[in-house]
Amino acid sequence: MKRNLDASGDEISADLDGLARITDPDRPWTRRAFSPRFDQGRDYLRDRFATSGLQVSTDAGGNLIGLRPGIDPTAGTIMIGSHSDTVPDGGRFDGVAGVIVAMEVARTLERRGVRLRHNLAVVDFLAEEVSIFGVSCIGSRAMAGVLPHNWLDRSSDGRDLAQAMRDVGGNPGKLSGALQQNLRAFLELHIEQGPVLERDGLSIGVVIGIVGISRVEISVTGRPDHAGTTPMNARADALVAASRIVGQIDARAKALTGQGAHFTATVGEFEIAPNAANVVPGRVRMLVDIRAERPEDSAAFISWLKNIEDDSEVEARLISDNAPVRMDAGLQQILSEAAEGLGVAHRSMVSGAGHDAAFMARICPAAMIFVPCKDGRSHCPEEWADIADLTLAAEILSDAVMKLDAKTEGQDG
Amino acid sequence: MKRNLDASGDEISADLDGLARITDPDRPWTRRAFSPRFDQGRDYLRDRFATSGLQVSTDAGGNLIGLRPGIDPTAGTIMIGSHSDTVPDGGRFDGVAGVIVAMEVARTLERRGVRLRHNLAVVDFLAEEVSIFGVSCIGSRAMAGVLPHNWLDRSSDGRDLAQAMRDVGGNPGKLSGALQQNLRAFLELHIEQGPVLERDGLSIGVVIGIVGISRVEISVTGRPDHAGTTPMNARADALVAASRIVGQIDARAKALTGQGAHFTATVGEFEIAPNAANVVPGRVRMLVDIRAERPEDSAAFISWLKNIEDDSEVEARLISDNAPVRMDAGLQQILSEAAEGLGVAHRSMVSGAGHDAAFMARICPAAMIFVPCKDGRSHCPEEWADIADLTLAAEILSDAVMKLDAKTEGQDG
Repeated sequence: MKRNLDASGDEISADLDGLARITDPDRPWTRRAFSPRFDQGRDYLRDRFATSGLQVSTDAGGNLIGLRPGIDPTAGTIMIGSHSDTVPDGGRFDGVAGVIVAMEVARTLERRGVRLRHNLAVVDFLAEEVSIFGVSCIGSRAMAGVLPHNWLDRSSDGRDLAQAMRDVGGNPGKLSGALQQNLRAFLELHIEQGPVLERDGLSIGVVIGIVGISRVEISVTGRPDHAGTTPMNARADALVAASRIVGQIDARAKALTGQGAHFTATVGEFEIAPNAANVVPGRVRMLVDIRAERPEDSAAFISWLKNIEDDSEVEARLISDNAPVRMDAGLQQILSEAAEGLGVAHRSMVSGAGHDAAFMARICPAAMIFVPCKDGRSHCPEEWADIADLTLAAEILSDAVMKLDAKTEGQDG
Repeated sequence: MKRNLDASGDEISADLDGLARITDPDRPWTRRAFSPRFDQGRDYLRDRFATSGLQVSTDAGGNLIGLRPGIDPTAGTIMIGSHSDTVPDGGRFDGVAGVIVAMEVARTLERRGVRLRHNLAVVDFLAEEVSIFGVSCIGSRAMAGVLPHNWLDRSSDGRDLAQAMRDVGGNPGKLSGALQQNLRAFLELHIEQGPVLERDGLSIGVVIGIVGISRVEISVTGRPDHAGTTPMNARADALVAASRIVGQIDARAKALTGQGAHFTATVGEFEIAPNAANVVPGRVRMLVDIRAERPEDSAAFISWLKNIEDDSEVEARLISDNAPVRMDAGLQQILSEAAEGLGVAHRSMVSGAGHDAAFMARICPAAMIFVPCKDGRSHCPEEWADIADLTLAAEILSDAVMKLDAKTEGQDG
């Protein structure tokens, strides 16, 4: 179906190409936070924010903000955006698409000649991906006033995070409490990073919640014996034991998935020691990533992990535990209506990935829409989303912002 | 039982301490081949060889040799020794004990006032452990004339192996054919590196053979998807698949072990990619170390590995395949008789580790004796052997050398 849209796929496409060109040339597409490439990307965005009629600034958390002032100074701000940093060898869309589509929303409103009551703020959050400082969502945590203060001391390449934030224009000395007052709503467009929308043949997903993410580190201790001289029945092989545990984790997660709610458990990091051809593995360290729509599912899984039994010495330690976040029901409704108004088939879905929106939900109503990505792939050079879907998303977000803006305060809910 | 021995535990102990002092101080005990520490160890040995009445030289293969000339120039040479290089963070006994005990044999014969018909040669083979050049048993391969010529081009730290051999006094231009003519026998003392002698309460093992060692590299290819957004039933998790394979290898090896002959299979190297907390593992590479007393056991195991089936894409590649080596029956007999002559309980056993003796067996009758090591451990700082056992070994080897020397040519067999 060819629709007559105000949002411009050509503009979106040009900006995707413009940012994609700013990459470490030998490993496309890489524009990691706090790198010179990232700064170049920010320069590009500052220029494009300005061209799109936005007043450019950087907040104390190092977030780049483009403001389109509203006509009612008391109405507050509607914020849209995502992040422009990438993982190493990452894609051209993860986060980037959300910033570019947010700019396109501002331009679409210009094209429509719309003056909003509310301020519209386009945001590029600082360092959503795990950066060289080993943590994620630095900008959105800072904006929500929940960036752990001791993270500022984290050091990498001879620079601490505080200095790195100053270097992108932030002001880590002014990070107490939420950085934005009177936020009316936060909206984020992101690629799905999974196979569901593509499988269902849909252009848009309305996110109902973001999974809780817990990480459990498991250490398996055996005994590092000589691989040739130690009889098979006299070994404590940590890899053999850890392999049993990997199988149990997978089987249990699959069983839980069958119960309907989103649940995944993945052993993504796995290292053995001494990792030598002629030595029986003496130690395995693995990191289990647990994501659940329902907090009771992750709690039960973690409890099971902590009590897992094996012939070997097994120790499980909870490293981090973030609760699931529900997206604002009113915003979901507005987004669904905007999609329906354009005749766009869509579905509700859970986000299995973490997003800046999860932190923004702490300080204002927040919601997200997803577009499909090819083969469900992300965090890889092959990551791809259709310009047509992104253009629809820009149109839906533009309509949603106008609906939201038109609501009187009494209707707020 | 207190025996009246000619071999001196004090001398052995002093030499063990002397070499142990020559270590990288922050990681005892480390004296890797081709390192400055190794050269210092060789200086120590040259000095001690000379003090023990031996004529010191280095052969073309970089082996340090201490010669005690015999009275019959046509009788040939009886060689005893092992290696003085260590693995990183290795032990004080692996190889080292064999060189030191060989020196003690020379001194014991001096003490006894014995002149042998045969030359006696004490040897410190070059680089028995896997060195910075990625290969092992360089000196004994060279002495046997089977050092692959293209290994000389192997490079590490800006130096090729040929240069590194020259730097220890070798002459890689003269490596064609066996380096020693008219070798009558080779004898090697080594720590067992396994738990069998300690378990059986024995001081001496007479080695009947050295296992064949084969290495198979297995690659498991899945798909690296996002750990949060990819449903459990839509994954190709290479780690889950590889874990199943590790379990199968272990179970099959245990079953084979039950059939009596020495057999081990160990996954000692195991790496996953991308090894990131939030990515489903897309690839696993593992290296299987297979050691068998019977060649038919390793052949059957390798064949099974090559045909292993799994839902994932599995590829098995034979990296190296060395056949088992039998020790000389006549020498085993002489060693057993020497032990019995001293009233030392002993047993026959298979070596699950590779040794220089395996290459020496290609050019002359060769045999080994083992002494127990504490908890069966080796290649680690805790590696330990009793001085009393090493002294018995020196006495047994001295007696064996004299028995061998006394044999007329007609009795050779």
